[in-house]
Amino acid sequence: MEIAALRSAGQDSWLHAAVPVVVDAVIEKSSTSGKPYLEVQLCDARDRFALRVWSDNGQYDTARSLAAGSCLRLEGEFHVHPQFGLEARKWSFRALEGKEKEEFLAGPPDLRARQEADYAFLAETIDKIKDPRLRELGLSFLEKFGPRFRRTAAARFFHHARRGGLVEHTAQMMRYADAVCAANAALHRDLLVAGVLFHDSGKLWENCVEEGGFAMPFDERGELLGHINIGIELVNTLWKGLPLDDWKNLQPDNEDVRLHLLHLIAAHHGELEFGSPVQPKTPEAIALHYIDNLDAKLEMLARGYASSATVAERIYDKVRPLNIRPVAPLSAGA
Amino acid sequence: MEIAALRSAGQDSWLHAAVPVVVDAVIEKSSTSGKPYLEVQLCDARDRFALRVWSDNGQYDTARSLAAGSCLRLEGEFHVHPQFGLEARKWSFRALEGKEKEEFLAGPPDLRARQEADYAFLAETIDKIKDPRLRELGLSFLEKFGPRFRRTAAARFFHHARRGGLVEHTAQMMRYADAVCAANAALHRDLLVAGVLFHDSGKLWENCVEEGGFAMPFDERGELLGHINIGIELVNTLWKGLPLDDWKNLQPDNEDVRLHLLHLIAAHHGELEFGSPVQPKTPEAIALHYIDNLDAKLEMLARGYASSATVAERIYDKVRPLNIRPVAPLSAGA
Amino acid sequence: MEIAALRSAGQDSWLHAAVPVVVDAVIEKSSTSGKPYLEVQLCDARDRFALRVWSDNGQYDTARSLAAGSCLRLEGEFHVHPQFGLEARKWSFRALEGKEKEEFLAGPPDLRARQEADYAFLAETIDKIKDPRLRELGLSFLEKFGPRFRRTAAARFFHHARRGGLVEHTAQMMRYADAVCAANAALHRDLLVAGVLFHDSGKLWENCVEEGGFAMPFDERGELLGHINIGIELVNTLWKGLPLDDWKNLQPDNEDVRLHLLHLIAAHHGELEFGSPVQPKTPEAIALHYIDNLDAKLEMLARGYASSATVAERIYDKVRPLNIRPVAPLSAGA
Amino acid sequence: MEIAALRSAGQDSWLHAAVPVVVDAVIEKSSTSGKPYLEVQLCDARDRFALRVWSDNGQYDTARSLAAGSCLRLEGEFHVHPQFGLEARKWSFRALEGKEKEEFLAGPPDLRARQEADYAFLAETIDKIKDPRLRELGLSFLEKFGPRFRRTAAARFFHHARRGGLVEHTAQMMRYADAVCAANAALHRDLLVAGVLFHDSGKLWENCVEEGGFAMPFDERGELLGHINIGIELVNTLWKGLPLDDWKNLQPDNEDVRLHLLHLIAAHHGELEFGSPVQPKTPEAIALHYIDNLDAKLEMLARGYASSATVAERIYDKVRPLNIRPVAPLSAGA
Amino acid sequence: MEIAALRSAGQDSWLHAAVPVVVDAVIEKSSTSGKPYLEVQLCDARDRFALRVWSDNGQYDTARSLAAGSCLRLEGEFHVHPQFGLEARKWSFRALEGKEKEEFLAGPPDLRARQEADYAFLAETIDKIKDPRLRELGLSFLEKFGPRFRRTAAARFFHHARRGGLVEHTAQMMRYADAVCAANAALHRDLLVAGVLFHDSGKLWENCVEEGGFAMPFDERGELLGHINIGIELVNTLWKGLPLDDWKNLQPDNEDVRLHLLHLIAAHHGELEFGSPVQPKTPEAIALHYIDNLDAKLEMLARGYASSATVAERIYDKVRPLNIRPVAPLSAGA
Amino acid sequence: MEIAALRSAGQDSWLHAAVPVVVDAVIEKSSTSGKPYLEVQLCDARDRFALRVWSDNGQYDTARSLAAGSCLRLEGEFHVHPQFGLEARKWSFRALEGKEKEEFLAGPPDLRARQEADYAFLAETIDKIKDPRLRELGLSFLEKFGPRFRRTAAARFFHHARRGGLVEHTAQMMRYADAVCAANAALHRDLLVAGVLFHDSGKLWENCVEEGGFAMPFDERGELLGHINIGIELVNTLWKGLPLDDWKNLQPDNEDVRLHLLHLIAAHHGELEFGSPVQPKTPEAIALHYIDNLDAKLEMLARGYASSATVAERIYDKVRPLNIRPVAPLSAGA
Repeated sequence: MEIAALRSAGQDSWLHAAVPVVVDAVIEKSSTSGKPYLEVQLCDARDRFALRVWSDNGQYDTARSLAAGSCLRLEGEFHVHPQFGLEARKWSFRALEGKEKEEFLAGPPDLRARQEADYAFLAETIDKIKDPRLRELGLSFLEKFGPRFRRTAAARFFHHARRGGLVEHTAQMMRYADAVCAANAALHRDLLVAGVLFHDSGKLWENCVEEGGFAMPFDERGELLGHINIGIELVNTLWKGLPLDDWKNLQPDNEDVRLHLLHLIAAHHGELEFGSPVQPKTPEAIALHYIDNLDAKLEMLARGYASSATVAERIYDKVRPLNIRPVAPLSAGA
Repeated sequence: MEIAALRSAGQDSWLHAAVPVVVDAVIEKSSTSGKPYLEVQLCDARDRFALRVWSDNGQYDTARSLAAGSCLRLEGEFHVHPQFGLEARKWSFRALEGKEKEEFLAGPPDLRARQEADYAFLAETIDKIKDPRLRELGLSFLEKFGPRFRRTAAARFFHHARRGGLVEHTAQMMRYADAVCAANAALHRDLLVAGVLFHDSGKLWENCVEEGGFAMPFDERGELLGHINIGIELVNTLWKGLPLDDWKNLQPDNEDVRLHLLHLIAAHHGELEFGSPVQPKTPEAIALHYIDNLDAKLEMLARGYASSATVAERIYDKVRPLNIRPVAPLSAGA
Repeated sequence: MEIAALRSAGQDSWLHAAVPVVVDAVIEKSSTSGKPYLEVQLCDARDRFALRVWSDNGQYDTARSLAAGSCLRLEGEFHVHPQFGLEARKWSFRALEGKEKEEFLAGPPDLRARQEADYAFLAETIDKIKDPRLRELGLSFLEKFGPRFRRTAAARFFHHARRGGLVEHTAQMMRYADAVCAANAALHRDLLVAGVLFHDSGKLWENCVEEGGFAMPFDERGELLGHINIGIELVNTLWKGLPLDDWKNLQPDNEDVRLHLLHLIAAHHGELEFGSPVQPKTPEAIALHYIDNLDAKLEMLARGYASSATVAERIYDKVRPLNIRPVAPLSAGA
Repeated sequence: MEIAALRSAGQDSWLHAAVPVVVDAVIEKSSTSGKPYLEVQLCDARDRFALRVWSDNGQYDTARSLAAGSCLRLEGEFHVHPQFGLEARKWSFRALEGKEKEEFLAGPPDLRARQEADYAFLAETIDKIKDPRLRELGLSFLEKFGPRFRRTAAARFFHHARRGGLVEHTAQMMRYADAVCAANAALHRDLLVAGVLFHDSGKLWENCVEEGGFAMPFDERGELLGHINIGIELVNTLWKGLPLDDWKNLQPDNEDVRLHLLHLIAAHHGELEFGSPVQPKTPEAIALHYIDNLDAKLEMLARGYASSATVAERIYDKVRPLNIRPVAPLSAGA
Repeated sequence: MEIAALRSAGQDSWLHAAVPVVVDAVIEKSSTSGKPYLEVQLCDARDRFALRVWSDNGQYDTARSLAAGSCLRLEGEFHVHPQFGLEARKWSFRALEGKEKEEFLAGPPDLRARQEADYAFLAETIDKIKDPRLRELGLSFLEKFGPRFRRTAAARFFHHARRGGLVEHTAQMMRYADAVCAANAALHRDLLVAGVLFHDSGKLWENCVEEGGFAMPFDERGELLGHINIGIELVNTLWKGLPLDDWKNLQPDNEDVRLHLLHLIAAHHGELEFGSPVQPKTPEAIALHYIDNLDAKLEMLARGYASSATVAERIYDKVRPLNIRPVAPLSAGA
Repeated sequence: MEIAALRSAGQDSWLHAAVPVVVDAVIEKSSTSGKPYLEVQLCDARDRFALRVWSDNGQYDTARSLAAGSCLRLEGEFHVHPQFGLEARKWSFRALEGKEKEEFLAGPPDLRARQEADYAFLAETIDKIKDPRLRELGLSFLEKFGPRFRRTAAARFFHHARRGGLVEHTAQMMRYADAVCAANAALHRDLLVAGVLFHDSGKLWENCVEEGGFAMPFDERGELLGHINIGIELVNTLWKGLPLDDWKNLQPDNEDVRLHLLHLIAAHHGELEFGSPVQPKTPEAIALHYIDNLDAKLEMLARGYASSATVAERIYDKVRPLNIRPVAPLSAGA
């Protein structure tokens, strides 16, 4: 079982279950009445929660000595407190071992399978780009940064905020890009696909999940430059490694291709007020901006359906940052 | 030739040409030095301009007696003044007659053909809707309001602001809707397609072009209610004419289908700040909002490429309301 | 005594009192240390609070078996905790019965009397409308939806957020409308009065309180369409039931009257940024917008004086959504 | 006849008429082809326009020697050019003399009568204030600054932008204040009336029209401080001249009365974003803010009805700064 | 030791320490399980926290009888709870007496010394103003309001929010003003220095700390008028006390000097949207606005470095109201 | 004489003068009455205007054959038309030759001298940077791009919008940076100075003036990327050319220095809403943002004093984009 599944299942009553988790931190605290306890922060591929261990619990000393990064099988009763969130009682744990641990760190099979499929689709789509500059640039990115890319989240909060989330977001955007180009022949498909690949590539240094784990530390480069500037620097570095001389007679010029691609990265936030250093000025830049929004907003809504409480039949509690109460979709009955 | 073509061709020098036009109004004026002249306002399917006729021009009296709605063949030399726009000199005119006039009022063949094709595609797409409620609703709309729909512009300014523009905008949005549903199976295709058809249907009373002409008068209903409220009233009226009893056992319920469709109309502006009385709360409402924006913004950019002056090689003058200087798209060379 | 009165009286110390309440929900929970308790959510005509019942309390089993909708007399000691709000201790309860229960559900006499008076004033004002279309429309609304209207709140939070609040808000706005028309003869009194009656009528499906109780469930129609669109649909439906043929020779035309009334509903939020699909374009629409704001903001301020803590003599704590610290009004001494 | 009347009457054709005007400035210019002309800037109580005098006009030399402040009777043909506004041809002028001139400078009788009536109503309303502090303060203001007050406009553009406009605006706001207090007994009538009197009193140094004329020069004090700060300084100065000792035992305290009155001035713009140094925090401050908006916006709309072109039957061209196309009010037929 | 120091030192473990504090309030509360406790609110020169005393604590009765304003030496173990902030256990207290108390109320020596130095620098800078009007005005302010000035905070939250904070802020702004005038000879140094002195002088009635303590009560005058209006009233009052006749022949005129100084106060918030009744219109007003922002923002950042948790090496948690995660400054190594 | 001087001197009457100018473009046009004319666009170091040459002017053919880039001495009478700006009559021209031409293209001596001095100050300040990385980076920038830097404007409109304007802006910001560091020892002087040098360096490809002339063509790279991204790419490129290995043991690390410098460029617009991809997160980034604003706004104000009309004594007409009416500074009389 996963933490997220506990959250869904434990909304009404106490649920007996076991979950594999990794220890993020163990912090000594004490209650306002002075009673000491440990706060053991645990996470898995999709979610996280804090286990409180009181000093009179027989497992207190064992829990206290848990190292960050330890992988555990936590068994007990779980419940979602309306104010405090997921809680556990009557629990015990033991270390995860061998294959069990390996599988846990690989992530849940469905998520893993989806991300594998997304990554394969994405790599295949890049490989089919006709323009040699954009194709080789994309392939060199996957070659050099593939593993890091696969660990990166699309955002720190709100949408695709999990290991591999950026691969999911990028792949789905490529599907939309493909579809939109099919509906509008005037769009430059190669350019748009490459733009999708690189538009958030700076997040590899903003929202990257650590190797062999699920934590997402902050990165000084990400904080000081932001993912737009890092993405541009990344493309420029990869670009210099291409055999540009071989393509010096191609039309359009190498330099034009580079500038238009950088423009897609620079303008993808769409409006100055969202920190976009330039506004979209080409058809592909406009298309990329709306495709990005479309996928991000649909994912936020899907997250709302999956995790928000229902405040009435078919109506869900407010979802941030959409700031709406989602209404259940019309079931496709007819 | 068309007015828009004069505008493109006459930017650098005086061009000899003939254009069919319809008289919108003839206004008597006089210059600041007291010299009388006529301002003859002329338009065609895509554009409009004003011809000045001075009192010492031999055609002054003839021009003065032109009735609004008269169709003319205007021949002469044309030029685009950088400050005052399109101007004519050494011109003469005669009435358009018979087939010539009929063809002119039908609009230029390419535009007519495109709008015919768009309308056919749109009607066919409606006909393929599987849900009988949404299909019949769409068909009854086309049946009752088809001719009015085909005369309506998508906007008064800025994008698709011409007779038939709403058909073009709606058809292209249907292509995007189709494509996006293909890329995301979770979207309810029937609902989204019907939402596209009706989202701007209130504009039939906001931006409708008069019969047998090209003028777009203001309408008190449009001013007082706005197209969102008119569109909702329209759907409600058509809905009451459907054989709903025949479908009372369908899933989802008739009433659910109606409410979800109305939501797509009510929420398509996306944000309260753009006068949206509700924000999008279902997947199809989110998708519709971005598809609408995508087509509108790409059309504004295309209009910029076609009609803005170039301020440098491959850079165009500011385009309203995008408020950007478009950059020429990357030519698909490779 | 009422819950709101406990809140005022119990700010400084524990207060012994009894209050009639209705059970909204009983939820089983447990503390972080694993101790089970019940959260019994209780409300009355003006307010709500949660009673916590620990498992070692002798009334635990009785409390656990309380059905939603049960009416109780709760007696005990009450206190307002600065962080957690209203709390009870040493409490007991018994079922409300017969007349006692009936009176409780009717609401407190002062509120009931005020709402009765407000409703009577409102009905009388409608009855005095001279234009037969607007008068009959108003009367048919009261006839068909009077009971629902009387149960509706003016808002879910912030102002008049209680059963009958919409009647209070509408009646006070009618007083202001009357007064403003007296001061400015150019305003169309009948139209403005009818606009006040219907401007929030869509809230009958957005903020309606259940029959025989005080809960305000969410409604899918309200969420999907919003009260502006529902109000317009309501007026259109009532309008179709009027004997319009009898009035076909009246000036202004029936259709003009309908459009101007719908405009008042459509434009009453005043600015696009507040989700107004059109801006006010007639004198009555402008007047309605400001009268609505005037009453809503004065009520928010009054609520602040009544329920905010004082942070200094004559200065109150911040009031949402005004986002100000109210200052006590100047007493009318002279 | 007045300039504003020429504007209404001369929209369709050339109109023969005579108007009294005062010379604001005479400026020598020349056309782009080098032909010299004079631009004679003329105004009256409600409006202004520029007369062009070409060098080959026999009246050129006379016109050139006109002094600013000269009062003339201008006779000729007038017309409203759609782009350049009001124009004249075949004109002549002579000096206004004696009673003719006196009456002209007094302003048109209807405007004069309305402003007289408004001022009398305003003075009477002040005189009826019961609180002696507020009454005497108001009376001392009228006594010391009455003439200046009567020359002041309520704004430089947009609403009541004419000599005496502030008296009209203030008087109408007093009528609304009276009406609103009648509808809501909780409001402090004396305080609100005094607040209305003083809320824009700083405009006596921001928008004051010169004595014996119609020009509205800029004032350094107004530019540097703004009317809110000047109004507060004015009240403080007048306040110090009151016999406060005589009232030292009144309730509420003198100082409380002063602070609440200053608050009404300081907060009347309502929101920080409109340059309000504080937001309204008392009932009267909220009421004053909405009454001010109500009168200003209704006057802007009235100005739109009177002077905007109609773009369709019952629909007017956009009005600044409302940024709407006004729709004709519903005629009170029934 | 000070409270702020406990906060820094107690982030990781329990720390034994003693701090002098003053009692702000003692409030009787009880836990959700009904257990009574006292919340003893304590503060010192820079910070504040709440001590919880349970009813079974032997010091309960003593704590209950503590009067607001009592000065104590609190000794015990301290710890920063990640959610609830600073906590104490195993504590005891005794009254501060004699010199100990006096020193405590004087504030910590380093803060006292810095504020003394800042005040001396500020007084000296005023004394060096060459224009006699501005110099005497500044000196009379220090003479009449010096002690109140030294007790005032620069803000209620966010920056320099402590007794004497306004002196620190004003002095540092004077250093910047001096520096900027040195770099730009066109700025009027005397005017800018006087503007710095008075720009926030209205805060003496908005954020003043009580005498002999550290609490900052709200003030009705501050709430109703805001510091801009109070500052202007203050300058006007002091100005009237100057021997203006002696300077009636100076250039620029007395009145010009007064208006320009008032403009600096009125415009220092820079934009209407920040409640500035006028925007900066002179060079010194622009300079003052940016100098004010520069010092305020740098202080907020410094406060973030000092008190925010680190979320990664050299990266700090979000700081309000900057709404950024500060990054550690580059150490000046080279 | 310069064009700007004509503008100041010719506001009231026709002025006889001669100015050196360069031809930017010659465009054939015709008046609305069909009369042909040439629009000869002329500019100099600080300003530009358009000369109209009618077909009946004897110099028509000569003017028609003028090549873009021709340098002329234009003599005649000049005047500022209130609506159309600077106009000329009775003019003649001849080619500039030899030294005369050379001096003209060099720019006016005072501007040249100021820019020389500014550039020298700037180079000297860079040379005094103690950190070898930042010093060498700055020096390599001056060495490689010095001439381009000296031709660049600080903006296309509004402030320092002239050849060399970026040098003036950068030098003055360095003076402020120096001054502010002197007043606040905690700021890293070397970093701030380098940040000032590079913050707008991307404008070398956004606002660069052509060699040997005064025109400022648009640049595709500037349009697609914006100056922030170009500046970052520039620093990255120069950085790679530095002998970083020699400094690998310096503290702080090379990479830290690079990131902090890039942060200053990335964050200098201050707020996301101004297109800043990241907000300032270090003390130097905050200081740079305010110093940039201070100089830009003071220059806009100075431009207003120099070129806006006075609307009253000591009050100037609105200045864009400050959107204020400047008030004359207080003369430093005392």
